[in-house]
Amino acid sequence: MLVKHSVISNIGRLSSLSPSSSVLRRQQFLVRTLCGSRFNPLKLIRAMSSTSEADAESILRTITPSLDPKRHKGQAGKIAVIGGCREYTGAPYFAAISALKIGADLSHVFCTKDAAPVIKSYSPELIVHPVLEESYSISEFSEEDKRKVQDKVIGEVDKWMERFDCLVIGPGLGRDPFLLECVSKIMLLAKKSIVPFVVDGDGLFLVTNSVDLVKSYPLAVLTPNVNEYKRLVQKVLNCEVDEQKAEDQLRSLAKQIGGVTILRKGKSDLISNGETVKSVSIYGSPRRCGGQGDILSGSVAVFLSWAQQLKSGPESQKNSSPSENPAILGCIAASGLLRKAAALAFAKHKRSTLTSDIIECLGESLEDISPAS
Amino acid sequence: MLVKHSVISNIGRLSSLSPSSSVLRRQQFLVRTLCGSRFNPLKLIRAMSSTSEADAESILRTITPSLDPKRHKGQAGKIAVIGGCREYTGAPYFAAISALKIGADLSHVFCTKDAAPVIKSYSPELIVHPVLEESYSISEFSEEDKRKVQDKVIGEVDKWMERFDCLVIGPGLGRDPFLLECVSKIMLLAKKSIVPFVVDGDGLFLVTNSVDLVKSYPLAVLTPNVNEYKRLVQKVLNCEVDEQKAEDQLRSLAKQIGGVTILRKGKSDLISNGETVKSVSIYGSPRRCGGQGDILSGSVAVFLSWAQQLKSGPESQKNSSPSENPAILGCIAASGLLRKAAALAFAKHKRSTLTSDIIECLGESLEDISPAS
Repeated sequence: MLVKHSVISNIGRLSSLSPSSSVLRRQQFLVRTLCGSRFNPLKLIRAMSSTSEADAESILRTITPSLDPKRHKGQAGKIAVIGGCREYTGAPYFAAISALKIGADLSHVFCTKDAAPVIKSYSPELIVHPVLEESYSISEFSEEDKRKVQDKVIGEVDKWMERFDCLVIGPGLGRDPFLLECVSKIMLLAKKSIVPFVVDGDGLFLVTNSVDLVKSYPLAVLTPNVNEYKRLVQKVLNCEVDEQKAEDQLRSLAKQIGGVTILRKGKSDLISNGETVKSVSIYGSPRRCGGQGDILSGSVAVFLSWAQQLKSGPESQKNSSPSENPAILGCIAASGLLRKAAALAFAKHKRSTLTSDIIECLGESLEDISPAS
Repeated sequence: MLVKHSVISNIGRLSSLSPSSSVLRRQQFLVRTLCGSRFNPLKLIRAMSSTSEADAESILRTITPSLDPKRHKGQAGKIAVIGGCREYTGAPYFAAISALKIGADLSHVFCTKDAAPVIKSYSPELIVHPVLEESYSISEFSEEDKRKVQDKVIGEVDKWMERFDCLVIGPGLGRDPFLLECVSKIMLLAKKSIVPFVVDGDGLFLVTNSVDLVKSYPLAVLTPNVNEYKRLVQKVLNCEVDEQKAEDQLRSLAKQIGGVTILRKGKSDLISNGETVKSVSIYGSPRRCGGQGDILSGSVAVFLSWAQQLKSGPESQKNSSPSENPAILGCIAASGLLRKAAALAFAKHKRSTLTSDIIECLGESLEDISPAS
């Protein structure tokens, strides 16, 4: 119940801050979806309740929307990746293109001016906004001018915020202090507009150092790898990772951060929001080439959006349980899909499998689990 | 025993220079691996002892690690290429992407600011650092400011150094004096951190003019082509190349440089560390398109890392011989794999075979020799 109460209190608080009609609509939507007044598909309960291993394929089938010719552009998902700097350009591309390959309609990237032409060159499918700034480009500026630059960056993202169904914050972000300060403010904006976000890569570096940025925001998903998880446990729980108590420790960590959802990546992926703990162990590949985490973060964003849509749609029924929240469902579906695509790519390419090969297998894997028609 | 003694004396000397725990760990690792306290797989001895022609396929099978789902990102190899300038961008890309295609987990490129966006645009899989500088961009600077720029360049590489399993120094480096001075210092950094490196292309121009940069560093591998080899022989042995005494001359050259490993590319590849001399003549292609040397240097880096891992792993046994050092094994495996991939690409593409076609055949060739599962 912790999650529900914090959502309600958050919504109450935010309502007084931002009374615009679109925000209110989103609030009402959230009250409906997260507080479970109308939702309880039996097959989701069956898929999630038997053991701690989730039936990822069944959940994936349930939350993937049917393709209806009457729908228009954007209704299958509008995702934005916040990341990409002078040093890193591959990671935001992987996250953004994965979202499209799964079935989102629009995929944006907000990155620095240096990164934008490169990310654009990877694919004409992405909408790339060269709006973020790093310290080196404003090093000669006065404090006042730096504030103006920051306001401009925030403004550029803010004018798009309401249109997005989910953000992915962190792939290829880098650790520039000025840039991270701007991204902190983007997180506050997302929370104010009640837009869910997935935090990965350098976004997790930021969050580990400023846990309050995500604390008690039930629409935040963290996707740490082994090292990122270790730092998070040390910082929040003030202890070391204990593999013997992996599930309990993950539950405690998520609870301690006020009910955010954490997807701990590993040989089996473990997922918790501080209440339920689920694992996904199907398929998978022994190849550990860099970039697979970016596919996952982009995929969580899409499936989380779809799970939210489903909850607010006509099929939803009464009496939901906290374990059915869209963030948990999104994580399970994304983990299952990535693991299947990685297995398929590995079967084709073996040791030479690269992240791009796995992305090319997302469509075939999804079709295999949940045929489009 | 020359190699072992020089390793030990090097380690003793370096230990007093850099007492950080990570350096000490690497030193202990090297004492274990290069000084052979625990290593002697019988099949390696059989593969290497019968004639001067190495059994490249058998060595390749032995040093290629099994794929274990419990391992995490980075454990199959983290490689960095130092190269790429305003003029050359293809060579560092070929070296870096080859490392990934063979099975390394992460592949970085450190290049000039002009080269970075282009190399990034070739592939989102690479992590490209735009940190090197050429003379033209600092021509107006004072000597003091030039020194500051150099310090900054070295600092940018140094903060990553400890994470790399092997460097490739030279592909597409160019011959700008300021840039080469920085790269000299990067070689010193690598030696201080006991990181192995492969020197090719313009890196060999630098080393031929300053042999002390690699002298007596047993983790240095030089991969000269016919012209680069000729200049090296003239400079170090003060004579001309004598094809009648090719093996003896190569052994003398490697010995004269204090036991570095030299892979002399040709119709047959010849490999020596000043003690043993091995040749690799299997497969191969008559096509001589530019860029194949870059595939080789990236491949040597990966196989050398794997051979080192194997020596420190649980399978290793007592009584190693100098001919089993990781640099020699890495060269033999890389030569064999490139020659097989080149043959396969030539069978498919004939005269139109390009370096990219050979790279596309690396995975299939490796799988054919050493199946992933």
